[in-house]
Amino acid sequence: MSYNLLKGKRGIIFGALDENSIAWKTAERVNEEGGKFVLTNAPIAMRMGNIQQLAEKTGSEIIPADATKVEDIENLVEKAMEVLGGKLDFVLHSIGMSVNVRKGNHYTDMNYDFTTKGWDVSAVSFHKTMQVLYKKEAMNEWGSIVALSYMAAQRVFPDYNDMADNKAYLESIARSFGYFFGKDKKVRVNTISQSPTPTTAGTGVKGFDGFIAYADKMSPLGNATALECADYTLTLFSDLTKKVTLQNLYHDGGFSNMGVSQEVMDTFMKDQE
Amino acid sequence: MSYNLLKGKRGIIFGALDENSIAWKTAERVNEEGGKFVLTNAPIAMRMGNIQQLAEKTGSEIIPADATKVEDIENLVEKAMEVLGGKLDFVLHSIGMSVNVRKGNHYTDMNYDFTTKGWDVSAVSFHKTMQVLYKKEAMNEWGSIVALSYMAAQRVFPDYNDMADNKAYLESIARSFGYFFGKDKKVRVNTISQSPTPTTAGTGVKGFDGFIAYADKMSPLGNATALECADYTLTLFSDLTKKVTLQNLYHDGGFSNMGVSQEVMDTFMKDQE
Amino acid sequence: MSYNLLKGKRGIIFGALDENSIAWKTAERVNEEGGKFVLTNAPIAMRMGNIQQLAEKTGSEIIPADATKVEDIENLVEKAMEVLGGKLDFVLHSIGMSVNVRKGNHYTDMNYDFTTKGWDVSAVSFHKTMQVLYKKEAMNEWGSIVALSYMAAQRVFPDYNDMADNKAYLESIARSFGYFFGKDKKVRVNTISQSPTPTTAGTGVKGFDGFIAYADKMSPLGNATALECADYTLTLFSDLTKKVTLQNLYHDGGFSNMGVSQEVMDTFMKDQE
Amino acid sequence: MSYNLLKGKRGIIFGALDENSIAWKTAERVNEEGGKFVLTNAPIAMRMGNIQQLAEKTGSEIIPADATKVEDIENLVEKAMEVLGGKLDFVLHSIGMSVNVRKGNHYTDMNYDFTTKGWDVSAVSFHKTMQVLYKKEAMNEWGSIVALSYMAAQRVFPDYNDMADNKAYLESIARSFGYFFGKDKKVRVNTISQSPTPTTAGTGVKGFDGFIAYADKMSPLGNATALECADYTLTLFSDLTKKVTLQNLYHDGGFSNMGVSQEVMDTFMKDQE
Repeated sequence: MSYNLLKGKRGIIFGALDENSIAWKTAERVNEEGGKFVLTNAPIAMRMGNIQQLAEKTGSEIIPADATKVEDIENLVEKAMEVLGGKLDFVLHSIGMSVNVRKGNHYTDMNYDFTTKGWDVSAVSFHKTMQVLYKKEAMNEWGSIVALSYMAAQRVFPDYNDMADNKAYLESIARSFGYFFGKDKKVRVNTISQSPTPTTAGTGVKGFDGFIAYADKMSPLGNATALECADYTLTLFSDLTKKVTLQNLYHDGGFSNMGVSQEVMDTFMKDQE
Repeated sequence: MSYNLLKGKRGIIFGALDENSIAWKTAERVNEEGGKFVLTNAPIAMRMGNIQQLAEKTGSEIIPADATKVEDIENLVEKAMEVLGGKLDFVLHSIGMSVNVRKGNHYTDMNYDFTTKGWDVSAVSFHKTMQVLYKKEAMNEWGSIVALSYMAAQRVFPDYNDMADNKAYLESIARSFGYFFGKDKKVRVNTISQSPTPTTAGTGVKGFDGFIAYADKMSPLGNATALECADYTLTLFSDLTKKVTLQNLYHDGGFSNMGVSQEVMDTFMKDQE
Repeated sequence: MSYNLLKGKRGIIFGALDENSIAWKTAERVNEEGGKFVLTNAPIAMRMGNIQQLAEKTGSEIIPADATKVEDIENLVEKAMEVLGGKLDFVLHSIGMSVNVRKGNHYTDMNYDFTTKGWDVSAVSFHKTMQVLYKKEAMNEWGSIVALSYMAAQRVFPDYNDMADNKAYLESIARSFGYFFGKDKKVRVNTISQSPTPTTAGTGVKGFDGFIAYADKMSPLGNATALECADYTLTLFSDLTKKVTLQNLYHDGGFSNMGVSQEVMDTFMKDQE
Repeated sequence: MSYNLLKGKRGIIFGALDENSIAWKTAERVNEEGGKFVLTNAPIAMRMGNIQQLAEKTGSEIIPADATKVEDIENLVEKAMEVLGGKLDFVLHSIGMSVNVRKGNHYTDMNYDFTTKGWDVSAVSFHKTMQVLYKKEAMNEWGSIVALSYMAAQRVFPDYNDMADNKAYLESIARSFGYFFGKDKKVRVNTISQSPTPTTAGTGVKGFDGFIAYADKMSPLGNATALECADYTLTLFSDLTKKVTLQNLYHDGGFSNMGVSQEVMDTFMKDQE
């Protein structure tokens, strides 16, 4: 399937680790839709995944960058414009990591050095990326910047830990920077609040499989997959959504506006008997 | 511009009055993107506008229907499936009218017969339409139903009168019915909360021009036009947004997440001096 | 327990049916806190309950009124000011009823005459009440008007039926009218979005007991009781919350901001095994 | 005025700098309502203000603490329980500071060391405080923890800079930690989203006076003062709001639910002529 929706557009895609990644699926779909891009990831993440394979498949270059380091991002943005032959039309930020989660620290027993590290990687990296893009005048008018988020930014999911707070900060950055990027450069900035997705990163969270099943039963259309998220991201990169900005957009089969579904109630009641 | 985004899709478009209408622009764009549809409007509205011209341009049939009358909608849905040769993939509900606004009744001095009439036309008509579509099994799986709304459903705009309450009810219907339509038929239901738009209907609201200028200055990307709204609607009708449902989606250049813009503050401060 | 929080204040309390009613508990607590009020209910509801007993206990008069009839409300407001010896400081609107729910009509198979009746009783009655209060200049400055709502106005609870839409409309009225009442008369208008509460009215909803248990397990502090709701309402009637207006205030043990609780997940997982 | 609303209750009040502070007014009002507390502030802030005067007036002890240092908070909480003779019933967190704002760095030109410092002071300090309270079992059941926030957490105010993102993180902490504090200790956690208030801290923000005037004209009841915020905080500390938790509560004269007020539109239109 291709609509040539992104023909002639150039961009950067952060965070493709392996074929389960939303960023991976997005890269494949952007490629099918005629867009060109460079791939980037942290040097350490690149050793774990197989991004090289994605680069070959999509005819893309990889430019490693630690998204917490401004100089790395500067290098990335400059090289990307060189490689792609012009300013950028789209950027996908799909980065997140909590050291507290990895180390098994409960939310009520956080190590604050870990908290700071996770916040820097998961949230501040988005500001750093936009600040570099903004200062370097690297985005074309009506370009589109998207970061991936999760509904824990609004509501409590006990195992999500400090990633909830990081996502809240990330979404705030989207609004705050989106204002200046919109006003000054006519660039859109939005976040997609995606269903829980069985990515390699996501599986680090405790009880994640059970939670995915729960979310699926709660959502009238079921959970959104990584591929469906890629498709949705395409619409936000396209010229059909030029006036959508500062938004946090739920892509979740309807979960976000559910109080309770019949199926979840039925399961609950069975247990009560 | 065409991506063939809606190739092979069939639908119904309510509410095209004249070339300023969002529904009119949507019909034109759907047509360009390969979708087929019937047009409908209330008999009285049809006498005022020039929908015939749109029908000719897009090769569409017109089936008049008063959207407050269930039997009219039943006739519309049956005929539409006949004319289009199958079940429907998309429906646009773009209907709204407040008798209190038309008659100049202030919100604190409403005539409740007028209130009831406006609620029936602007909000209940959406439920009636979906109830008929649902009962008649008229929608294909992964079809998409969209209604147009306005941010007065969440925040106070003094001149918007009882249309604010009608839009709140409309958006609630989208969620409530969207749950059943999603669960039972795999159909999406969403509302688009559009910038104030200088349509022929919108101009009935007092002080509307000034308000459009204000919204434009408040929005980092400026107001969204009717054509841009049509484009955005296409994405929601397309197969790229299959898991977006129960949402109220702001299409407003960022207005909805603004506290205040620099431009509005500057204007305000100039006056204070 | 009494703080004399409402000493010298006068008001009207709608909707006390029996000792399970939130309005009943509120009347008792207002009385303990030194407030004076008249009780009102629809003539038909009065025959079902034992409001006379509450009137005696609190030394209050009962003035029957059908809250869908403007002339009844006019009579109520006039008499109330007479009986209480002055303008009003507080009003509690605790009225709701869906004929579709009572008759067992599913949300996808509504009878629209019933829909209209339920909307008029549950939502428009609040506008009518405020319009009468506003026109008759019946509220003192810094008075407080509260209506009871439910989170179905924002999120889907399948069995809540058209009451969800009615509550969305009710909350919109609170904002819309609250603006004019605030600006013109310095009166607050808010809604309380209360936990599911085992009132006599609430028990009409299908599967309500199970749902109450579910909500209790989802809420970190458990469901809020009718008495606790009465206490919360006191704070909104008091002079300590003079600048709280146009708000929908969740009084629900935290339910509204939960994605999922550990207890609900545990129950869910047990079933999956 | 005193209702004895907090008779017998003990707590800690962070952030009283001088008589313009919300925390200062809260301390005075808590004292009037019968509550006992210790005051705390950062050593550096204490040199700038005159908190000693407040301590004398309210018969309170001062225990200095840098709220970014866990060991300082541990000392504070232990000493507070000693001084007050038991566990705590209420805590007010009223701390916020952006180094980027102070240094005049634009949001698109942030110094990330400053960003980290401001985030730690304004947001993480709230987590640190609760983590210490939680681990030390320092709160009584049905205790209440409140932090002060601002609507920039949800909407863009261009000059608010990274404080917007800090407040978003702060409000997320309230939800995340509030879940565990509620479930495990029956303690409420909420934030109050207060009108812009002419405190000594607030005046650091560029164009603040103009913005206060704007907010006042936008709000149907006008801006909420520091004293009114103190009153509102009392209700959240009292036993009348036991089931209110995880909430962000707007205390703003209605601003948060305004699209535009008539007065702001009038000012805007005058300029357009």
